[in-house]
Amino acid sequence: MSIVVVGSVALDTIHTPSSTHEELAGGSACYFSLAARHFRPVGVVAVVGEDFPQRHLDLLARRDIDLTGLAREPGRTFRWEGVYAEDPNQRRTLRTELGVFERFHPTLPEAYIGAEALFLANIEPNLQLEVLDAAGEIPLVAVDTMNFWIEGNRPAVDRVIARAQVLLINDEEAHLLTGTANPAVAAEQIRERGPEVVVIKKGAHGVAARGPWGWLVLPALPVTEVLDPTGAGDSFAGGLIGYLADRDWRDRDLFAAGLALATSVASLVVGEFGVGAIAEDRSDELRARCHRLHEATRFEVPRTFR
Amino acid sequence: MSIVVVGSVALDTIHTPSSTHEELAGGSACYFSLAARHFRPVGVVAVVGEDFPQRHLDLLARRDIDLTGLAREPGRTFRWEGVYAEDPNQRRTLRTELGVFERFHPTLPEAYIGAEALFLANIEPNLQLEVLDAAGEIPLVAVDTMNFWIEGNRPAVDRVIARAQVLLINDEEAHLLTGTANPAVAAEQIRERGPEVVVIKKGAHGVAARGPWGWLVLPALPVTEVLDPTGAGDSFAGGLIGYLADRDWRDRDLFAAGLALATSVASLVVGEFGVGAIAEDRSDELRARCHRLHEATRFEVPRTFR
Repeated sequence: MSIVVVGSVALDTIHTPSSTHEELAGGSACYFSLAARHFRPVGVVAVVGEDFPQRHLDLLARRDIDLTGLAREPGRTFRWEGVYAEDPNQRRTLRTELGVFERFHPTLPEAYIGAEALFLANIEPNLQLEVLDAAGEIPLVAVDTMNFWIEGNRPAVDRVIARAQVLLINDEEAHLLTGTANPAVAAEQIRERGPEVVVIKKGAHGVAARGPWGWLVLPALPVTEVLDPTGAGDSFAGGLIGYLADRDWRDRDLFAAGLALATSVASLVVGEFGVGAIAEDRSDELRARCHRLHEATRFEVPRTFR
Repeated sequence: MSIVVVGSVALDTIHTPSSTHEELAGGSACYFSLAARHFRPVGVVAVVGEDFPQRHLDLLARRDIDLTGLAREPGRTFRWEGVYAEDPNQRRTLRTELGVFERFHPTLPEAYIGAEALFLANIEPNLQLEVLDAAGEIPLVAVDTMNFWIEGNRPAVDRVIARAQVLLINDEEAHLLTGTANPAVAAEQIRERGPEVVVIKKGAHGVAARGPWGWLVLPALPVTEVLDPTGAGDSFAGGLIGYLADRDWRDRDLFAAGLALATSVASLVVGEFGVGAIAEDRSDELRARCHRLHEATRFEVPRTFR
């Protein structure tokens, strides 16, 4: 197994101004694995209920996603329902029904031991610590956004952060973790607590990453059609960790390429509902978007000003 | 004269969590010209009252800024007072005292006719139209942010926009002008009304510009010390228009370099109070920051994903 993701597999109901889509395949592990498998094989550790549709399992199992670690428990699958405003950056949660996710206890299958990368999505930090203990030596441990737990279980969050090589958070979480409103300062402070790279996800405003090579910053690709931003952050992480899993992620140029690919995946995902945009292999489209991002950002420093 | 700016020269009083600075040289024309003169000579059209300090005039007149068009009228100078929160992106205006700016009637000195570029800062749009009529044929007309007037005098704003080659606005103004919340869509719609380039300024999140060459997008430089964001937008415009004034601004690579320099100027300005950071020639520092931005954003599109 190359990459292991521990997170949620869910049924999402999404309302936008133009339409409603019910019980889509969703959850962090779902978006992450569909993005990451463009680069490396992925093994999922998550739980679904008895009601999780076979067609969603088929979608995940189709290519390079190992579901050995996806438990099926008696009860209902984790459900989320949300509504997006005309401005798709504004969303409101209508319903969260934890179902079997409430008693989720991640167990790593034998085949997942010795992975190249481990991605811990937003789950209870004590569970993340258990996974870290069970997983053995892993070259790249990445931990994602954990807003809820920063206030709810800070000591455990701090222990998880100390064991992460790459931490992915947003502006607000950087502020919560450090007490400083300036994300550039916050990222440097967080690096002193363990992670070699702090990736600050800014959604429609792109990404800023502070690592051993200094700062890497990339804007998002301008997209004229944003249908459904659900899962953009998890897909971003899937693109980044997927690309870096068997590479030297301490290398500046490789990390920069990973961020560009991650940006491209996220721009793709928001253009369709649910995981629709990455249900199939979209490598060619990802490469095309990466070229568009390159063309939109490249410049030469002028030699003369006058 | 290479560049003419029509805008405000003001006395700013700025409160931050750490200190207060009173009656600093400020206003759009002041920030713009101090940034732009790093590239080309600038002529200012603005008005001050009898109380405007000689030391501020000396600062402006020092190098490559022509003050022939700066009228001095009986009465008090335009004053602005504001307070920044711990998060410097949040500011509150405490006081706006228009003074002589209320009766400002811009007049172009003879020597300013036939400039390479004209920058119309945020003033009443009918005055902007008068300036456009008086200025004759100008290769590059740039118009800046005009939030107040979009709601107050929309017909005049539309006429100004139709005569601009480059329009600089923010997300909110793009939304107000078009009714669409997606800035990528809004920029394309606004281009159909006249401007060949629409530059969307996003402050700490960078800039996105839609022109004949497609999209150019650049993030802001991460800055660990933001002392005073006042004038960042006007300095950004000064860097951009300053660099492009005698160049082919329809050329993608030149526009991209201009955006990078503008980003560098803005990052410099916010690090000191008022115009402190650009009161002297800072060309070397601007070039260094431009290199930092280049290093933070460059990447190669991966040839293989696996």
